[in-house]
Amino acid sequence: MQALPGFRDFYPEDFAFRAKLMRAWRKTARSYGFVEYDGPPLEPLELYQKKSGDELVGQLYHFVDKGERPVALRAEMTPTLARMVAAKHREFRKPLKWFSMPQVFRYERQQKGRLREHFQLNCDIIGEASIEADIELISLLIDTLRNLGLTSDDFVIRLSDRQFWTHFLQQRQVPEDKWYEVFQAIDKSEREPREKIAQRLLDNGLGALTDEIYTILEKGAEWDRLTQVSAGLKARGLADFARIDFRIVRGLAYYTGVVFEAFDKAGVFRAIAGGGRYDDLLAKLGDEALPAAGFGMGDVVLGDLLKAKNLLQETTPELDIYVIIPDETYRPAALGVVQTLRNLGHAVDFPLAPTKMRKQFESAEQRQARFAVIVDAKSEQGVVEIKELATRVQREVALAGLAGELAGPVS
Amino acid sequence: MQALPGFRDFYPEDFAFRAKLMRAWRKTARSYGFVEYDGPPLEPLELYQKKSGDELVGQLYHFVDKGERPVALRAEMTPTLARMVAAKHREFRKPLKWFSMPQVFRYERQQKGRLREHFQLNCDIIGEASIEADIELISLLIDTLRNLGLTSDDFVIRLSDRQFWTHFLQQRQVPEDKWYEVFQAIDKSEREPREKIAQRLLDNGLGALTDEIYTILEKGAEWDRLTQVSAGLKARGLADFARIDFRIVRGLAYYTGVVFEAFDKAGVFRAIAGGGRYDDLLAKLGDEALPAAGFGMGDVVLGDLLKAKNLLQETTPELDIYVIIPDETYRPAALGVVQTLRNLGHAVDFPLAPTKMRKQFESAEQRQARFAVIVDAKSEQGVVEIKELATRVQREVALAGLAGELAGPVS
Repeated sequence: MQALPGFRDFYPEDFAFRAKLMRAWRKTARSYGFVEYDGPPLEPLELYQKKSGDELVGQLYHFVDKGERPVALRAEMTPTLARMVAAKHREFRKPLKWFSMPQVFRYERQQKGRLREHFQLNCDIIGEASIEADIELISLLIDTLRNLGLTSDDFVIRLSDRQFWTHFLQQRQVPEDKWYEVFQAIDKSEREPREKIAQRLLDNGLGALTDEIYTILEKGAEWDRLTQVSAGLKARGLADFARIDFRIVRGLAYYTGVVFEAFDKAGVFRAIAGGGRYDDLLAKLGDEALPAAGFGMGDVVLGDLLKAKNLLQETTPELDIYVIIPDETYRPAALGVVQTLRNLGHAVDFPLAPTKMRKQFESAEQRQARFAVIVDAKSEQGVVEIKELATRVQREVALAGLAGELAGPVS
Repeated sequence: MQALPGFRDFYPEDFAFRAKLMRAWRKTARSYGFVEYDGPPLEPLELYQKKSGDELVGQLYHFVDKGERPVALRAEMTPTLARMVAAKHREFRKPLKWFSMPQVFRYERQQKGRLREHFQLNCDIIGEASIEADIELISLLIDTLRNLGLTSDDFVIRLSDRQFWTHFLQQRQVPEDKWYEVFQAIDKSEREPREKIAQRLLDNGLGALTDEIYTILEKGAEWDRLTQVSAGLKARGLADFARIDFRIVRGLAYYTGVVFEAFDKAGVFRAIAGGGRYDDLLAKLGDEALPAAGFGMGDVVLGDLLKAKNLLQETTPELDIYVIIPDETYRPAALGVVQTLRNLGHAVDFPLAPTKMRKQFESAEQRQARFAVIVDAKSEQGVVEIKELATRVQREVALAGLAGELAGPVS
């Protein structure tokens, strides 16, 4: 019997890798003054319908529970965050700088690198309309990747602004119900040939815009807000990590301003992270409008990139001490030593069943214990032998002083 | 819009409480040489049906996914662990000492203290038949509670052995298909009057056993294996935390040997934790028999107990430094300072929008920052002011030496 397709088992080594990655996420988010929260992995289906539209709902794990409620496994964190903030934001001083690292679920067709679950760092700033919030988030995204050992040779943040395009479309009197089609065409312009995109625009009666759109995509354009973002990143010494790219529009319907995605520079992997401003969402779920922006970063693409660059070595936690029991006569004394050392906070293991000395030392080595403590006849005189496994230096110490001896090196 | 009934939102304070509790779990499990793993929160329904019987299946969140697979939200960790170990145990040196802290889900009727999800510490030893494994687990359970500040005045481990009862029933020629009924009767003997239990046994043709069973429940009995467990706990100095109690049988069908539960001594709360030996389960899921034992401890009852005893104070992580921007002219310089300090690993916040000085200092206090760093005109000469907020000591320091100054106390 196996795990469901698209779901991962985390054996200790896999867990150690994930834990190391998530510790780096947490440490960086905290260095930016973000505080951690969490929400339920199961939510009312309505929460996603209200916010994300049918686009996402097609990929949801949803069902009807025993109380006849339509429910869904959490597909992204933003709806939960918006719901939580809408309910209680008056209790908190603004802006909120909150992060979370939930596991999220989508029922997607199985492909390489596309699982049905992943862990996702979510960082959001709520209650701050200023562009400084966008810059703070983009900087946090950059520093999260830098703190994992990635450099500006490895990744780039591509920046855009949905309002650049909505302004463009307004100027050209394109009716609002066509905007989403244009966003979709721009989004696809990287993966599909120009003829196909032109046809797409033509089919929507927007063929006249094709040349103009392509000029912008290829040559760029002036846009004040993105110039400000660039200046803000420059003041922080992070300008090398980002560039303006009007191809970025982000799939989800709810973005309203600056949007951004992180990619590996070699272009081998899917997007590493993405986010943007979503000023209208809180009002939809609560009774009050609150400006908001945020990003999400999954563990799967990032993990693949880090492994490809040989950057994150998982290390299963080491043992401090392995207690050797040469003879079962001394088991009770050994148990006393084990307990004393654990009480002091040391990580201690020992053989649960009678085991040959050689095998016990093998276990100690395999678990990368720093010290072996041998409890034998001498323990009756209050003395044990300690051996530093790396140096093989061995000597006798008094049981009473054992704790102090094991704090530093034995030799 | 709210969370589903029985599901919790973890606002930053709630999260801090949970995180502190889970850190204590992790630290204690590691001190016992356990390594962490994780599995999927969604599993094939069959996994639970195979292992737990209908008893648990009635409380599952189960549904049919878009690929027509009957699936269920993880209701406990043991089936996942057994599945994972059965698939790969040859790769690992025995015994395995593994722990996990999954969120688990049951669709139970809503009652006080009964949620539909909780986080659960799971510690298991696999591949060791010796009673020493049982003792190691019970000791770990005791130390987990001790490390959270609870004492032998607060809790007790009640120990029993399913084999005591199976031996008892075999001796009296009770057919095996009646055993489960007897276990249920014993389990209920704490909450139901003797007459009701006697009736229950009578209905199963076992009325003749009532007196004998009650004598054991009330007066105890000699049983070698439990004497060994007591001796093992005594050798570790943990004898005060446990007592033998033949009422404990554990609900789940798969236990085969020593079983135990942790309770608050005042008897106010439901069981804090429970576990036991389940030597037959691995063979059911894999091609090989492997002895196993383990326990689970949820965060809800334990959290309520710790709150009642005032033992676990949640503390939202503090800020190291709040950077004050007295005038927007100095924002770019301030951003440089912020970035430098964050690069050094400090947790740093600052106003994202133009803000009055007084409000900035309020934010710094509210976030419990240790230092305020004021970036004003003097920054052009390479100088900033730092103020230790607790002592209100303020002085000028060179920007170049700022990192060193902030490592220690300012005064």
